[in-house]
Amino acid sequence: MKKRLSHYDSSGRVSMVNVSGKNVTERSAAARAFVRMSPHVLAALPSNPKGDPLEIARIAGIMAAKKTSDLIPLCHPLPLSHVSVECHLRPDGIEIVANASTAARTGVEMEALTAASIAALTIYDMTKALDKAIEIREIHLLRKSGGKSGDYKRKAQT
Amino acid sequence: MKKRLSHYDSSGRVSMVNVSGKNVTERSAAARAFVRMSPHVLAALPSNPKGDPLEIARIAGIMAAKKTSDLIPLCHPLPLSHVSVECHLRPDGIEIVANASTAARTGVEMEALTAASIAALTIYDMTKALDKAIEIREIHLLRKSGGKSGDYKRKAQT
Amino acid sequence: MKKRLSHYDSSGRVSMVNVSGKNVTERSAAARAFVRMSPHVLAALPSNPKGDPLEIARIAGIMAAKKTSDLIPLCHPLPLSHVSVECHLRPDGIEIVANASTAARTGVEMEALTAASIAALTIYDMTKALDKAIEIREIHLLRKSGGKSGDYKRKAQT
Amino acid sequence: MKKRLSHYDSSGRVSMVNVSGKNVTERSAAARAFVRMSPHVLAALPSNPKGDPLEIARIAGIMAAKKTSDLIPLCHPLPLSHVSVECHLRPDGIEIVANASTAARTGVEMEALTAASIAALTIYDMTKALDKAIEIREIHLLRKSGGKSGDYKRKAQT
Amino acid sequence: MKKRLSHYDSSGRVSMVNVSGKNVTERSAAARAFVRMSPHVLAALPSNPKGDPLEIARIAGIMAAKKTSDLIPLCHPLPLSHVSVECHLRPDGIEIVANASTAARTGVEMEALTAASIAALTIYDMTKALDKAIEIREIHLLRKSGGKSGDYKRKAQT
Amino acid sequence: MKKRLSHYDSSGRVSMVNVSGKNVTERSAAARAFVRMSPHVLAALPSNPKGDPLEIARIAGIMAAKKTSDLIPLCHPLPLSHVSVECHLRPDGIEIVANASTAARTGVEMEALTAASIAALTIYDMTKALDKAIEIREIHLLRKSGGKSGDYKRKAQT
Repeated sequence: MKKRLSHYDSSGRVSMVNVSGKNVTERSAAARAFVRMSPHVLAALPSNPKGDPLEIARIAGIMAAKKTSDLIPLCHPLPLSHVSVECHLRPDGIEIVANASTAARTGVEMEALTAASIAALTIYDMTKALDKAIEIREIHLLRKSGGKSGDYKRKAQT
Repeated sequence: MKKRLSHYDSSGRVSMVNVSGKNVTERSAAARAFVRMSPHVLAALPSNPKGDPLEIARIAGIMAAKKTSDLIPLCHPLPLSHVSVECHLRPDGIEIVANASTAARTGVEMEALTAASIAALTIYDMTKALDKAIEIREIHLLRKSGGKSGDYKRKAQT
Repeated sequence: MKKRLSHYDSSGRVSMVNVSGKNVTERSAAARAFVRMSPHVLAALPSNPKGDPLEIARIAGIMAAKKTSDLIPLCHPLPLSHVSVECHLRPDGIEIVANASTAARTGVEMEALTAASIAALTIYDMTKALDKAIEIREIHLLRKSGGKSGDYKRKAQT
Repeated sequence: MKKRLSHYDSSGRVSMVNVSGKNVTERSAAARAFVRMSPHVLAALPSNPKGDPLEIARIAGIMAAKKTSDLIPLCHPLPLSHVSVECHLRPDGIEIVANASTAARTGVEMEALTAASIAALTIYDMTKALDKAIEIREIHLLRKSGGKSGDYKRKAQT
Repeated sequence: MKKRLSHYDSSGRVSMVNVSGKNVTERSAAARAFVRMSPHVLAALPSNPKGDPLEIARIAGIMAAKKTSDLIPLCHPLPLSHVSVECHLRPDGIEIVANASTAARTGVEMEALTAASIAALTIYDMTKALDKAIEIREIHLLRKSGGKSGDYKRKAQT
Repeated sequence: MKKRLSHYDSSGRVSMVNVSGKNVTERSAAARAFVRMSPHVLAALPSNPKGDPLEIARIAGIMAAKKTSDLIPLCHPLPLSHVSVECHLRPDGIEIVANASTAARTGVEMEALTAASIAALTIYDMTKALDKAIEIREIHLLRKSGGKSGDYKRKAQT
């Protein structure tokens, strides 16, 4: 019943969680980020339905997922079997959903969250000349599956 | 008066902004991120006033600032002269403020934002065993100085 | 019978190919590159039979194979079990052959091609003071084995 | 009059060329690569005039330019002020032209060549499911300017 | 009975050892480094028993273990399942012990040694303002287990 | 007269030293490492006077110098103008001397030390099949020049 911070051993020292005893299973996770921007910035995104800046953001997110263990100090390197990033235009900004999958001894939540975050920062980078007040909001895990801690699905917020 | 998306040339093709004609000047920027978490997770952070997970998050943020041009596709590599990341305990979560400075032909907004974002993701990684609903919120630029586009300071939100 | 571009899903959106359903099998690939240079540049390569610049090119190629998924946006990270790069002096230049092997759910063609390409660029870098017209030619896959799409062997060109 | 291999010192030992005594000047370079593919593969590239796979290749090339000193063992790290990559559809394949600029003590030829090469490999990666015989051809320097060794412009080939 | 240098094939050419034929087994290794410093530098380390500079060194060591195959030219990339780094204050300096584990076809000695070495360099970096004569001493393997070559345990030195 | 640990600000918090106020000057540093090995291992190094494993170690050291700011958490990224690594056969092992130069606001001691350390680890990696008791010893700074803190030259040890 007693839960501890991740990556701390019983003596309170930080280390990478030892997953040697865990089974290799299929695991996946999805994360979401939202880039809030004003209508005039949204209007400046190419009218092309596929939206170029969003294409670059998608690629940046996919590439960042592969760098997760290089960015987050205690993350394990994982052999990703799939990463995708989707960008959806909303009336008040751009919604990003990132998915990641692996067959490994530990989960891919951080990979999905990193992909979504870097995709959001990339959109910021390409729109910042138009408005410096753009804000990235609500980066969170949508769901995860696989692994001993069981599945998780974020409850709808009210 | 007509502003364009960053990193798009006049023919609408993406490229890294050409800063060859700009002057090398001192530039700095600060960015903020907020990791909202429930009181029981906050209570689990070490009682030590310096807070270990926050120390790791600070380092992760500093190291990530140095990788910004590797993460954001169209960012220029910059010779950073200073990066710092502060983490403050708030009643409803942890506030992160990242600062970056350089002497270069272009600004360090993305470096400050990347540092704040990766510090936030690192806190998430170390607390996720306690609560998967932790959320990163309100990543934005606080201020920037230096460069032709002038200084910027975020207005207080109401 | 209908083949699609790699890395595009059924809705035409780019993502990393989902290999979750594929089996882990032994896979290998070989690629070739050719650096054409004039006889006086070839003569300037050390007379030592092992040829130092070629030794550096070999190492650069081996190290680059390990970075393939960091360079090619939609490549999966793979646990390489073997990489080798050979450089052969030919009358009109240097022929490079790179081999890569893995036990994974997807093939190592890109790793072999990246190793050959970066080895070729490294030779260019060390000989460019002698002749800027040196050209890298004919980077292609020689063969691959393993995986559902079957083996491939390049036909001799005429 | 006696020219030596780059990166070899007077005792024949490899080292990074010492550029401490050189002046910081504006330097630029352009390189070209050609991906030869059959008409049926070219036809499978999206009919969209901007061509998605080419967009990804452009980004991969720009990002690779920033990694040049990490890939080519004896290259100096350079503060790039501009990188662009263009992809042009030709009847027998795709022509890639990469440009790079810096203000530094040494030139950006390798950055332009690396950008063109990785863009070409990325196109290969996305079209290889259609035809494994696709070939990258004729990677070479188009021009360079700046620096003591003077300007260079490749002669038209006949 | 005839042993060869690692990473050289039968023709004397360097390549990454081919581990395709080896079994995936659990492997672990421990390495040690010692940073010798004078008592006045040791005294300047925070009196806090956990010692902040040592915390940063631990994280740097853990992150470096994940970069081993990027640093050591012929190392295989390995899916690390655990890394930890401990720093112990001794009367004449700081003793570092790094542990690494994996399930792979080759061992993790280099990962443990790299973690210990970079942790030691990080301590040097943070104490060098106090004394430039600080020295890193005695980086060596303490033990390894798993793999065909059997277990190894360093004999106590006299 | 009161010296502080590097990278700690006046409030005791870790950050990258702020070098914004420092002048860009020419700076250089040299570092040394020693790999002690038994005569039978030394004898196994190729009889070739240039020594292949030492060539690979040299290159690994040069490439590692360029990654220093990626490895040592609080190091500044520096535009290196020169790096060289020399390996000398000694009766009881191999002596490594690494040199680094830059024109920057802070010194290159860590770059020289990192180059020497990774070159030493690379030699270990290539000789470990012959003797696991090989030890890296005495990594230290030999000299530095440039910068406000003045020149430094290590005193001969007795």
